[in-house]
Amino acid sequence: MDFQDYFPVWNRLTAAQQNQLLSGLTSRKAKKGTILHNGSADCTGLLLIKTGQLRAYILSDEGREITIYRLFDRDMCLFSASCILNSIQFEITITAEKDTEFWLIPSELYKNLLTESAPLANYTNELMAARFSDVMWLIEQVLWKSLDKRLATFLLEEAAIEDSNELKITHEIIANHLGSHREVITRMLRYFQSDGIVKLSRGKITLLNPERLEALASS
Amino acid sequence: MDFQDYFPVWNRLTAAQQNQLLSGLTSRKAKKGTILHNGSADCTGLLLIKTGQLRAYILSDEGREITIYRLFDRDMCLFSASCILNSIQFEITITAEKDTEFWLIPSELYKNLLTESAPLANYTNELMAARFSDVMWLIEQVLWKSLDKRLATFLLEEAAIEDSNELKITHEIIANHLGSHREVITRMLRYFQSDGIVKLSRGKITLLNPERLEALASS
Repeated sequence: MDFQDYFPVWNRLTAAQQNQLLSGLTSRKAKKGTILHNGSADCTGLLLIKTGQLRAYILSDEGREITIYRLFDRDMCLFSASCILNSIQFEITITAEKDTEFWLIPSELYKNLLTESAPLANYTNELMAARFSDVMWLIEQVLWKSLDKRLATFLLEEAAIEDSNELKITHEIIANHLGSHREVITRMLRYFQSDGIVKLSRGKITLLNPERLEALASS
Repeated sequence: MDFQDYFPVWNRLTAAQQNQLLSGLTSRKAKKGTILHNGSADCTGLLLIKTGQLRAYILSDEGREITIYRLFDRDMCLFSASCILNSIQFEITITAEKDTEFWLIPSELYKNLLTESAPLANYTNELMAARFSDVMWLIEQVLWKSLDKRLATFLLEEAAIEDSNELKITHEIIANHLGSHREVITRMLRYFQSDGIVKLSRGKITLLNPERLEALASS
C-alpha cells in the first residue's frame, strides 16, 4: 500500500499538489516509547500512521499525565504540526505506544497546500472536529463519571486494542492514561479483584469477567 | 458597522460568494436567557455576534452543567452549526447570557461556501482551533486546579466582563459555570468572606480584595 491509498483526500488534490506532497514526505519508523512531539515549541509535522499506535497526552506542572486520545492505523496526527494553526494554545505530547511506521508530512508543506486547497482544508476541519469530540468525551468522563467506571472502560478498551483479556500493563501506566495516581488505581483494581472481576499478577491484569466490566462501564 | 466589517475573511471571498452570504444571512436579536442552540439535533446556523454575550455549556444526565466557553462581540459561534462537520459527536447548548444582537448564517449556505473557498475553510479551522484551546484549558483546570483557584479565576473573569467588582450572580449560576454544586460554591464563598476577600449579600458578591484573588488564581 502506498501513501496515495492512505491519504484520504488524495484524489481531490491537483497533480501539482500531489507531486509536492510526494516529494516532501518521508517514511519513518519509531520504536515503542519514542516521543514524537513535545509541546508547541516543537513543530514536527503531520504524522500519517501506516501501522502502529500513538498516544497524545498532557502533563501537569507536577508531572501528572492524562491521555487525550490515541491514534491507530490510517489515522492522521494533526497536533504534531500545531504550529500550522495560530489559534492552538496548548501543549500536547505524542509518543509511540507501539512500534510505529508512519509518513511524516512537513508542517510548512502542509500549510502551503492548505492555503490553496479547499478539500484539504475541509478534511483538516473534519480531523480537528474528530479530536474535539474525543476531548469533549474526556471532559464528560472526568467531570461526571466516577473512577471505577472510567477504569472499567479503559480495561475494556485495552482488551479490544490488544485483542486479549490478559493485559500487560502497570498500574502506573493506567494512572497516566486516566489522570490519576498509581495508589488510587491499585486500590480500585484490588477492589475489582476482590469482586472477582479481574485477577492481578506481576505486570499483568487478567479480565475474568468482561460482562461485569461492561455493565459497570455503562452504568 | 455592517456585516462586511465583522466577517473576518470577507475580502478573501469572491464577489459571487459575498453575494450568496449577504442574501442568505439574517439579523437577529435574542433576549438574555434565550436558548439559541440545543444539542446536535439542532442545526441552527453560525452566529456572528454584533453585541452581546453567549455561553456554550454541556449538561450531564443528572442535569449538572459546566461552561465550555463564552463568546463576545465580534466572535463567531461555529458549534451552533455542528451539522456542517460530520465528525462532531457531542451535544452542546448555547444561550444568550446578555441581550444579544447577531447575524445568523444558515448552515447549508456556509457548508456550500466551505467546499469551494479555501480561505473560508482555513478561517473555520482557526475558529475550531481557538475553541479547542478553550476546552484544553478547561480540562487542565478541572483535572489539576482545586476549586478555590477555579472560583477565584471565575470571579475575576466576571469582574473583567462586567467591568465592576460588584457581581450580580447567584451561587447556583456559578456552580453551573464551574460544573460544581451550589452548596459547594456557597461553602467556598463563605470561606472567602471569612478571609476578607469577598462580601456576600443577597444575589450579589462584592470583590473586596482582587489582588488576593489574583494571587490565589495564579498560585
